[in-house]
Amino acid sequence: MARYDFMSDNTAPAAPEAMAALVAANSGFVPSYGEDPVTARAADLVRGLLDADAEVRFVTSGTAANAICVAALCRPFESVLAHAHAHLAIDETGAPNFFGHGLKIIPLPGVSGRIDGAALSDALGQGENAHVQSPAALSLTNATEYGAVYSVEALEALIALAKAKGLSMHLDGARLANAAAAGFDLKAIKGLGVDLLAIGGTKAGMTPTEAIVVLNPALSPRFGARLKQSGQLPSKGRFHAAPFVGMLEDGALLRHAAHANAMAARLAERMPFPLTHAVESNGVFVDMDEPARLRLHDAGWASSRFLDGSVRFMCSWATTVEAVDELGEALKAI
Amino acid sequence: MARYDFMSDNTAPAAPEAMAALVAANSGFVPSYGEDPVTARAADLVRGLLDADAEVRFVTSGTAANAICVAALCRPFESVLAHAHAHLAIDETGAPNFFGHGLKIIPLPGVSGRIDGAALSDALGQGENAHVQSPAALSLTNATEYGAVYSVEALEALIALAKAKGLSMHLDGARLANAAAAGFDLKAIKGLGVDLLAIGGTKAGMTPTEAIVVLNPALSPRFGARLKQSGQLPSKGRFHAAPFVGMLEDGALLRHAAHANAMAARLAERMPFPLTHAVESNGVFVDMDEPARLRLHDAGWASSRFLDGSVRFMCSWATTVEAVDELGEALKAI
Amino acid sequence: MARYDFMSDNTAPAAPEAMAALVAANSGFVPSYGEDPVTARAADLVRGLLDADAEVRFVTSGTAANAICVAALCRPFESVLAHAHAHLAIDETGAPNFFGHGLKIIPLPGVSGRIDGAALSDALGQGENAHVQSPAALSLTNATEYGAVYSVEALEALIALAKAKGLSMHLDGARLANAAAAGFDLKAIKGLGVDLLAIGGTKAGMTPTEAIVVLNPALSPRFGARLKQSGQLPSKGRFHAAPFVGMLEDGALLRHAAHANAMAARLAERMPFPLTHAVESNGVFVDMDEPARLRLHDAGWASSRFLDGSVRFMCSWATTVEAVDELGEALKAI
Amino acid sequence: MARYDFMSDNTAPAAPEAMAALVAANSGFVPSYGEDPVTARAADLVRGLLDADAEVRFVTSGTAANAICVAALCRPFESVLAHAHAHLAIDETGAPNFFGHGLKIIPLPGVSGRIDGAALSDALGQGENAHVQSPAALSLTNATEYGAVYSVEALEALIALAKAKGLSMHLDGARLANAAAAGFDLKAIKGLGVDLLAIGGTKAGMTPTEAIVVLNPALSPRFGARLKQSGQLPSKGRFHAAPFVGMLEDGALLRHAAHANAMAARLAERMPFPLTHAVESNGVFVDMDEPARLRLHDAGWASSRFLDGSVRFMCSWATTVEAVDELGEALKAI
Repeated sequence: MARYDFMSDNTAPAAPEAMAALVAANSGFVPSYGEDPVTARAADLVRGLLDADAEVRFVTSGTAANAICVAALCRPFESVLAHAHAHLAIDETGAPNFFGHGLKIIPLPGVSGRIDGAALSDALGQGENAHVQSPAALSLTNATEYGAVYSVEALEALIALAKAKGLSMHLDGARLANAAAAGFDLKAIKGLGVDLLAIGGTKAGMTPTEAIVVLNPALSPRFGARLKQSGQLPSKGRFHAAPFVGMLEDGALLRHAAHANAMAARLAERMPFPLTHAVESNGVFVDMDEPARLRLHDAGWASSRFLDGSVRFMCSWATTVEAVDELGEALKAI
Repeated sequence: MARYDFMSDNTAPAAPEAMAALVAANSGFVPSYGEDPVTARAADLVRGLLDADAEVRFVTSGTAANAICVAALCRPFESVLAHAHAHLAIDETGAPNFFGHGLKIIPLPGVSGRIDGAALSDALGQGENAHVQSPAALSLTNATEYGAVYSVEALEALIALAKAKGLSMHLDGARLANAAAAGFDLKAIKGLGVDLLAIGGTKAGMTPTEAIVVLNPALSPRFGARLKQSGQLPSKGRFHAAPFVGMLEDGALLRHAAHANAMAARLAERMPFPLTHAVESNGVFVDMDEPARLRLHDAGWASSRFLDGSVRFMCSWATTVEAVDELGEALKAI
Repeated sequence: MARYDFMSDNTAPAAPEAMAALVAANSGFVPSYGEDPVTARAADLVRGLLDADAEVRFVTSGTAANAICVAALCRPFESVLAHAHAHLAIDETGAPNFFGHGLKIIPLPGVSGRIDGAALSDALGQGENAHVQSPAALSLTNATEYGAVYSVEALEALIALAKAKGLSMHLDGARLANAAAAGFDLKAIKGLGVDLLAIGGTKAGMTPTEAIVVLNPALSPRFGARLKQSGQLPSKGRFHAAPFVGMLEDGALLRHAAHANAMAARLAERMPFPLTHAVESNGVFVDMDEPARLRLHDAGWASSRFLDGSVRFMCSWATTVEAVDELGEALKAI
Repeated sequence: MARYDFMSDNTAPAAPEAMAALVAANSGFVPSYGEDPVTARAADLVRGLLDADAEVRFVTSGTAANAICVAALCRPFESVLAHAHAHLAIDETGAPNFFGHGLKIIPLPGVSGRIDGAALSDALGQGENAHVQSPAALSLTNATEYGAVYSVEALEALIALAKAKGLSMHLDGARLANAAAAGFDLKAIKGLGVDLLAIGGTKAGMTPTEAIVVLNPALSPRFGARLKQSGQLPSKGRFHAAPFVGMLEDGALLRHAAHANAMAARLAERMPFPLTHAVESNGVFVDMDEPARLRLHDAGWASSRFLDGSVRFMCSWATTVEAVDELGEALKAI
């Protein structure tokens, strides 16, 4: 089997801090369904990370986190504006539409996964009538699918357009740690007008868990019932919370993300194929034809072709310098 | 805070075998979304447990497992027959109806959570017309909510009635390990005509994970897509599978369940309040008025009042002899 | 075939005023999807009937009207409080749950279809937690399934309880015309705090059409898109609106309802079986065993056994004095 | 207000035969919910039209007919292949996704609304995995949105591709009468492998009603419950059936469709703007810039710009020779 080190950032194991916290949480009898002290501690740490007062919940997958968020922001006959290559739009087997009972994702263009402001304005300017699913929410992803990192100012500009039309805001932070390690200020989120934020645990180096942060308090009542009905309020909730405790207590989340970003930068330096996107966080995208990619696979390295035709290499907390250098050599040799 | 030892079997931590397997699984880069060797191994072990060839999947909660199963067996304008006090019917915040897009649960009576055969016959004999949601599936729970254990023969008798009317079969095995430890033959399930089986991991002593066993191969195609859309195909799938590896490799699942059952029997012996249900697995249900229950709480022990008015005490793999005896003393003292 | 005169108030043809308006509307080319002058005129007449400013829409069935209304008032993890024998609760093949994506109907008791205030208070006083579908709306029906007519004061008392807990209000007026003919003041509705009102066309003597009145303006935006997605915005909308024009322009709606009510009163006078509910509008419910009901059927009269065990006889705009007297004779003869 | 004669074929009134049948049906007390003789008669006539044995149902809108059909053929995590400009794909405010609980429509290209065979092959050849909504059904429209008429052979070729992959078949016949009048053999449909067929009533000259023909008998059980739950089983069903009786009893359906087609041909002859699609049934599509279209509007004629940028003129049973000639003059004058 080929090596999966760079196939995705979800092929990695969990970081030691996450596992240690998981093991530490495994003691004693505690109330179930998230009423336990570990869950309370994890929520506090997330609030501290964001410097924001908010309900914080933990679910098992990014699919669930994002689908539940947009379903909370959008009625079935409405739509969510998202980048055409956003995970939400492309890679969830219709989960947003299932949880949202028929809601529509309207795809928008933009370089490197960032939504183009003019395209957003156009979409927001469409007339409303009974025959279309008009937008009720805007979903942004930071870092984007292509590893681009929005600045706070760039998000402000897009959100201002959406808020002017009364839309709600979802921020998909599956790789928020990587954005933060690249300089994005997490404490700025609370001032952006984001209603629901999903913070990725899995890709950041945890076992399966993602945080949903309910920044708009009007969405808080009965959020627990929403999660239970969605199959996302498991009884032993402490095990979804503990990895966040381990990763946030001593700064491991950002430290590991910075490592992943650095590995991507190192790989970019060694990359003999042309980059198709600037390397701003933990992904390297290159222009490589399929025969070359298959030769790389035969040489022992799994990789994937992405939506825009690029070949993608993802780094994670677990990526080693040695692996980067070995991959660099392999790429040169094919 | 009162002690939660007997509040439920989901207030316990995970068993050492489950945690050891979780830690052991945390190594190396592997394919995501359940394509990894740990998941393959866990599925093999579940097939071995049942002596059945079947697709095996792992999800994060019993709510999700059961809701996804009945949604797979029932169209929105149909219904599922289930015991009136079944978890599916009562305690899922409408998850079956949400995942099943409006399907109905028709509650049936029966002693100690076992469905009454005559009531089932009556329900199956109702005429069909466009104004009712006619039954498409029967859901049975073993062990039941009240700790009763169906024999293979008892299940056969109920299933025969349902199959004669063309219904599909769901078996909720949230506490299947406890039923098995009480003598129920897991290898008999494959001959019962069960289409979808959910095997509880959480209550059996694992971190959040439940197995869905697709016994009817006609339901297998695209089951992965069904899970992904439902938010139940997390990328790091090995962590949902590993606890099953740990608990099944050396027989810990049944060993722990036998312990839980034995603790319930021991508690029943020490119980000064009248039992309301026979103690056949890991729960003890008693007739206790609310002032007494509150005195017990003040004495340091959490308990819950159940649907039929009984007060419930649940034992788990983690219940200690000492705790049982201490609780027994506390009960006598109030 | 037995005579269907009293089987239901929906076995009758459409009243001449409704048909005349339908025929009159059938002229010329007009904008589609309810943008035509006939629809505008019908909406004006409904507003006049209620003396209320509100968006008025026309749909094809009471099932659709009520299901769409409760779906608009309730999220999938919430519930609607309704009388246990309300049409919404019993007779819609799960349409509220389908349109509402898993919402729950919580049945309440009460004499003759009126919700019991104490039972409503109890339901509203239930604690909330993540494991139950807490109420978000109260649905009342006037006249009730058993022909009882709420006074304005009675509705005020129930609604005050619900509004104190923040619930929204749905009024099912499938037989609102009969209630009005019995003295219920339609112009009082606007002051009751009703958010969405469904006014029955079909049972009042029209071809298939029902009005949805959006009394809460916050629910008005995108209501057309809601209807289109629900399959309830047919292109030739004028044909759903025209019957309301015909029935409202000259007072036919209330005149016909008064006739139906009078026929029920006349039948009650001739009824040799004991009444099970007071006759307040257009239904007569009696205590009659099944052999008697079958003898009546053999004598040529179809009837139906209702939820509470009563045998039901419904009168409509089309019920004739002769039919009432013939049925009275037949009842005496069996 | 501008004249709506050519705005759509749904801006026309109902044909005299439909209205006469509606009025004729309005007599006497009959069983409700489609159990009446008029509904039985209409179903017989539809079976005769198709020379097929099938369950026939009547619903109120094309949106409902098509959304219910695809929901019956497709699970939520699957998809329907349809032309990118099909009504189903574009113009239903997400009704298929709502009724189908998140199903996806995959748009395919093709000239004049006919699906391109190579594109269909490509779509059918996509690999399946858990992350995509794989196709379960193919939806074809005849006549297409652009007035093109599939031959029986053309449909056979596309359906053969889909059936080879196990897909189910939906035929949207909103303008099936126009296709038939253009030479498409309705009696050939039964041999095509179509599972569910929707026959348009509205655009063919009826009041709001569409027929769903259940050609695959495996889909027939509980279809009535499916309709009731969908809000599409109104109690006075005869009024949805009667127009089909009137239009089918004496051949008015095809006679009127032939007239509509002839009017389109006449308009095409008089058209000073270049045609963008061949005129095969009742629509005329032309290349006209927006200033010209607005001048036409100012001259008194409403028209609409269609998905491909063409300006569309639709003819119906009610289109007069005089109107065609007047429009032709107006077009020349602008």
